[in-house]
Parts: sequence; structure tokens; C-alpha cells
Amino acid sequence: MTISPLAPANFPSLPEIDGVRFSTIAAGVRYKGRTDVMMAELASGSSIAGVFTRSSTRSAPVLDCQEKLANPNGENERAIFLVNSGNSNAFTGQFGVKSVKAITEKVAAATGISEARIFTSSTGVIGEPLPHDKIIAAIDTLAGDLSAGAAGAAAKAIMTTDTFPKGAAAEIEIDGKMVHISGIAKGSGMIAPDMATMLVYIFTDAAISPTALQSLLSSLTDKTFNAITVDSDTSTSDTLLMGATGASGVNVEGNAAFADALHGVMLDLAHQVVRDGEGATKFVEVQVSGAASDDDARKVALAIANSPLVKTAIAGEDPNWGRVVMAVGKSGAKADRDLLTIRFGDIIVAENGWVSPSYSEEQGAAYMKQQELVISCDLGVGGAQSTVWTCDLTHRYIEINADYRS
Amino acid sequence: MTISPLAPANFPSLPEIDGVRFSTIAAGVRYKGRTDVMMAELASGSSIAGVFTRSSTRSAPVLDCQEKLANPNGENERAIFLVNSGNSNAFTGQFGVKSVKAITEKVAAATGISEARIFTSSTGVIGEPLPHDKIIAAIDTLAGDLSAGAAGAAAKAIMTTDTFPKGAAAEIEIDGKMVHISGIAKGSGMIAPDMATMLVYIFTDAAISPTALQSLLSSLTDKTFNAITVDSDTSTSDTLLMGATGASGVNVEGNAAFADALHGVMLDLAHQVVRDGEGATKFVEVQVSGAASDDDARKVALAIANSPLVKTAIAGEDPNWGRVVMAVGKSGAKADRDLLTIRFGDIIVAENGWVSPSYSEEQGAAYMKQQELVISCDLGVGGAQSTVWTCDLTHRYIEINADYRS
Repeated sequence: MTISPLAPANFPSLPEIDGVRFSTIAAGVRYKGRTDVMMAELASGSSIAGVFTRSSTRSAPVLDCQEKLANPNGENERAIFLVNSGNSNAFTGQFGVKSVKAITEKVAAATGISEARIFTSSTGVIGEPLPHDKIIAAIDTLAGDLSAGAAGAAAKAIMTTDTFPKGAAAEIEIDGKMVHISGIAKGSGMIAPDMATMLVYIFTDAAISPTALQSLLSSLTDKTFNAITVDSDTSTSDTLLMGATGASGVNVEGNAAFADALHGVMLDLAHQVVRDGEGATKFVEVQVSGAASDDDARKVALAIANSPLVKTAIAGEDPNWGRVVMAVGKSGAKADRDLLTIRFGDIIVAENGWVSPSYSEEQGAAYMKQQELVISCDLGVGGAQSTVWTCDLTHRYIEINADYRS
Repeated sequence: MTISPLAPANFPSLPEIDGVRFSTIAAGVRYKGRTDVMMAELASGSSIAGVFTRSSTRSAPVLDCQEKLANPNGENERAIFLVNSGNSNAFTGQFGVKSVKAITEKVAAATGISEARIFTSSTGVIGEPLPHDKIIAAIDTLAGDLSAGAAGAAAKAIMTTDTFPKGAAAEIEIDGKMVHISGIAKGSGMIAPDMATMLVYIFTDAAISPTALQSLLSSLTDKTFNAITVDSDTSTSDTLLMGATGASGVNVEGNAAFADALHGVMLDLAHQVVRDGEGATKFVEVQVSGAASDDDARKVALAIANSPLVKTAIAGEDPNWGRVVMAVGKSGAKADRDLLTIRFGDIIVAENGWVSPSYSEEQGAAYMKQQELVISCDLGVGGAQSTVWTCDLTHRYIEINADYRS
């Protein structure tokens, strides 16, 4: 598989998080010749939080994680995140529920950790029975192979149609001590709010209560993973799990520097997911300002970012701002044609209800040749704003999705 | 341009409507070597009704038509529909308003009809000034060339990226007299509720008050033109205008047979618009039943019909029902995974939260090879239903929209 032209140059160096260990294995769930199950172990007493797809047809592992986070038990024990790629165990009826149960029972037996602290995720094809025996057969090896430095290998094991593994990290000094954050993610199709076929696991040695961690994670998700869209489709399996071991001894509740650093890690991972959007050749930031409400700002930003006509124009490097006007118009948000200002980068394209007198088509066409684009739209009717990120819609997207049973 | 594989075999024979005359001309608005302006004249006292895009950035001619229908004047005079292709006169600021005024003034002078009865539409590129002088120069010729039999030529003059002209007609006997309905339409991209880049003109010799005609037209639009989607994008220019001359002498207010016949004409035209969807190779009916509310039924139907992943699977003849499950889940409608039944044609694909025991992949794959498909989804949580029509998403859609400034 060709690596996305928008991929970062290198996989980042992820710091080891005190209290977190990883292992991976090639269990043969669906793919041949590659790892497809990863285990992450978090130290005793780690705080766990999660955000999940809001799909009404969500998968058995998602429902199981939600249930466990809503009714926590064994909070002083270690915790396990176990993830397989190749099969999403979604829309698999009661069989799917039994698969989750069989896997978590085996992990509990192998590690001595309560099932309440074992969180599983599955990603891949929908509607086929998960061959959980293959995963169960690998658990003892996974539990025996855990090591602190294997986060990069874990990022590879959770990939499906991804063309590159995704990781991001931050180190910050708080009260003279270092606090570390390290995250991995996968996802390339079905990427849209809410979330995507996206799996994200973030680890930190900060100390923070489960409640405070959940609150922080949820609020930052709105500005990161819920602000990206590839194809407007939403997966049945989206999962973001975060664990905080507390091993740094630094309490970060209410700490703005920690929140900023976590925001940075989440935004970096979210952008990497867009950069690996199926068939993507352009990375596009859509900025909306001057909206009558936050909801309106987001509606307009998503209408632009999800419009097939806008996305194909970007693929064709066509500065077709009329399609941006169309998308604003269809969004349902309060807008006035004559108050709208549209910019490509710093170039004012349209204002006062018409093309800007300073704009030239050549200028727009030259801008559109860039790989990273900013489309901004000031509605001029209020003070609310929203930013979302997307990619273009190309022949390769059609190839991947018309020719491949994902 | 290759004609869509989904096009009807022939343009239908449209009956002449007593009191309606057409003319067309090649005015050179944008295209070379083809007609691009059409005039339709309706007899004195004709009832006029209209339905328009709800876009907040709608074009100057749309705003002008809406204003005239809201404040009718000269209702005993003849009426004119004047339509140009090649330029939509949308997002052209005050210049656009002046273009509409200049054109309607000229038509009024040439025909002796009040401007209040002159309705214009423009379709084509957004944001470029309409060369209205070219249209004005053609008005005298258009007014002199009006003839009853030219509806087919009118259907051709309003085409933009359409690959075939669109017409539909009905004749019904009411109280021993014949009543005729004849309609033409254009539209192929930006097709979505509400409406599309779609222009539709329908004529009848039935007698009906403007109020009753408006009410009937609006209610039938919900089940026809507002139930089709090609790419989820909505135009700034969508216009449906209908004129009733009354020349048959048959009053059809409250007449169910007339309503049915008009519904049939509108549905036929709406289906032709989908059949000419940019790059379409499959015509798809999406039926949703068992929803908790009408709104939910429509949400699910549109989520399926607009999903790029569903539409690319159809293009690839892949019976990927997991993507239909995904679309149901993301719709936001009330749904229960275990109550959902999904069918491809008569084949039950999924039920009780999983693939149906009677379903085989070979059966699904064979069904998907058909050119006309029905995807149905019973949510099992209520009694509401909705049907929408769409087409697949193909390489050709990307070609048309990434490579062509429309």
C-alpha cells in the first residue's frame, strides 16, 4: 500500500510512560504476515476514561467498555486495553457479546485482573463473526511479552486500511517534575463526527481522578476527534481510551498546561487520521467565524468540509469558491449572502455578495496547488466560530471503497 | 458527452397544453452551438405556483420569483417563464439583481405583460456576472417565435451538464373531458433535498386557483423532488414553477385523480434527474419503514442514500450491508441493532442483529449487478416510513467535478 502523501516524515519518538507496558502479536484474525492484536497494561490504580461513537448500532466491545466505565469496579487493580484489527465485531448479534466475554475472561485468567478493568476494542470488517479463539490463543503470549518501549509496535498492530502508524507525545514540566503523555491512533475511512472508524489510546503518568480525566477528555474530544471528517460516515466502533498511571506523582487536576499538552497530542493524532484519509492528497482546514451561534458555526464548517462538490474541486485544484457559497447556503445556518467573506489562505475571494474586486482566478488557482489549504468563511452575523479539518475526495477514495470489502 | 446508462430510451411525446407556447434560441450566454434560453408563455389568467431552494445564498432570480409569488399582481394577464442555462446569476451581488431587472423589463416591453408576471431562472456557473445583454438581445426573437409544440426544444435549452433532456406528461379524463399535464426538467449535479441544481417547469390546462395549485405543488414536492439525492449538495438556484391555464374548462381543485397524475409526472421527472446524476451507473430506491417518526424515517433514508461508503459499495457491486448498518447508526434516528431488518430487493440480508441465516454472499453479489436496486431497511421500532431515490458514486463523478468548473 502506498503511504499517504500527507503522512508525517517519521513516526515520532514516544516517551515510555511509567506504569504502561505493551505487547503485540500476529494472531491471524484476518490479515496475514502482520501483527493484529495489541495489549496495553496500566499499573494498579490507574484512572481510566473513554469517549465512544454515538452510533445507535455500536459494536459489542464499545457497549462493553461503556458499561464498565459507567459502573467502575476494581479501580485499585491494574487495567488492560486489548485491541484487535481485521474484524470489528460489530453487528454480530449475541455472538459478538459472547466473543467479548470469552476474550475478557481469558485476559482476566491470564493476568489476575478483574474483568471490570479489561477494555477491548475491535476494528475491521462489520457483520462477520470475530474468530475470538485466535485471539484467546494469543493472550498468554501477549501477557508474557509486555514491555514499556513497545508503543510504536502497538500503533502498527491496530492499523486496518491505514497507510502509516499514528503516534504523538508531549512532555511538560509541572512543579519541577516531568509529566509525559503518549498516544497512538488508527483510522482512515468512515471518519466523521462523531468520531470515526477511529481507535485512539492515550497514556500519561500524570495523577488525575477518573472523573476529572473523563471531563477533560470529553471536552477536548469536541475540538479534536469530533472536528475531523473524511467522508461524513461514522463508524460503529469508534473508541478513545485514556489511562493515567499517576507514576509521575504530579496531580494535574485543573492544570492548564497539562490540558494544553493533552489537547496538542489529541489534535496531532486527529490531524494524522485526516492525513491518512482514504485517497487524500490535500489537508484542508475549514475555519468559520462570525456565526450567530456555536452550533451554526459548526454546521457551516461541516457543510463545507463534507460537501462532495467542494472536496472534488479541491482534488482538482479548482478555486471554485461558488461551491463554498453553495455549502454555506445549504447548511441551514443563519447567513446573509451580502455579509459573507470567503478566503483561500490569506486571499479574499468573495465579499459583499460577490467575487472580491482584488481577487484573480490565477491567484486562486496558484493557492489551490498547495498541499495544505485553509478555507475560511466569515458569516458576518455574529461572534461564534468553529474549525474542522478534512481532506479532498479523489479517484483513489472511490477505488478503495468501490473495489475493497472493508 | 456520453448519455447516462440510466437514461430513458426516448424523450416522451409531450402533449400540447392549450394556452402554453414555447420558444428557444442560441444566445451564446456561455455555451457555443446550442440553444441556451427558453421562453414559455402562459395564457391570460393562468394560475402560477412555485417551490424554490431553501438555500440562504439563493440566486437573484430565485429571490425575484419568490417575491412575485408572495405578492401577486396582474393575475389576469398572460405570464412568462424565461430561463437561461450557462450562468446561474447566483452570488453576483447587486449586479445580479440588476440583471434580473434588465431582463424582465425587456420581456415586459416586448410582450406587453406586467413585470409581476415575468418569472426568470438561471442555471450554470456561480459567481460570474450574467451577460444579460446577450439575453436581452434575444427577447424579441423569442417572443416572435412562440409555438405550442416546442416543449421538447425547451427541455434541451435548459440543460447544463445533463446528458439527456427530461420530460414527462399525463392525460386524464375528468367529468368526460381530457386534462393534460406536461413537464420539463434539468439537473444532474448538486442534487439533494431541498431540491437541487434542478429547474422544473410544469404546465396544465386544468383550472385551479393559485392557492390550491401552490398547496398541491408544495405537498407533492416533498414526495418527489425533495426525496431525491445525488451528492447531498444543494443548489442556490433550484426552481419549480407550474402554470395552469384552465383552458380545459375542468376545475381540478380537490380532485384526487389530478393530484395522482401530477404526482406521477413530478416523480417521473425527479427520477430522471437521479438517472442523470453525475457519473451514475445504478438507480437506487431506499425504502425505510418501521421508524419511530416520519422525521426519523427520512433521516435514515437520507443517511443511507448520502453515505459515500454505501454509494461506492453500490458502484463496486459489493453487497456490503455493514455499511448500511453503519448509516442507520449514524443517522441519529431511534434504532435498535437487534430489531433492524435489511433487504436488498427481496433478499433478507440482516435481521436480529446479525446477517440472516438464509443469506449468502453470492446471492447478494448477484443482486448488486442489477442496474436498478432497492435497499430497504425496517427499523422495527414504529410505523413511519420514507422512500428516497439516489444513484451510486463513481469515478466519473470525481472526473466531472474535479476536472470541470461547473
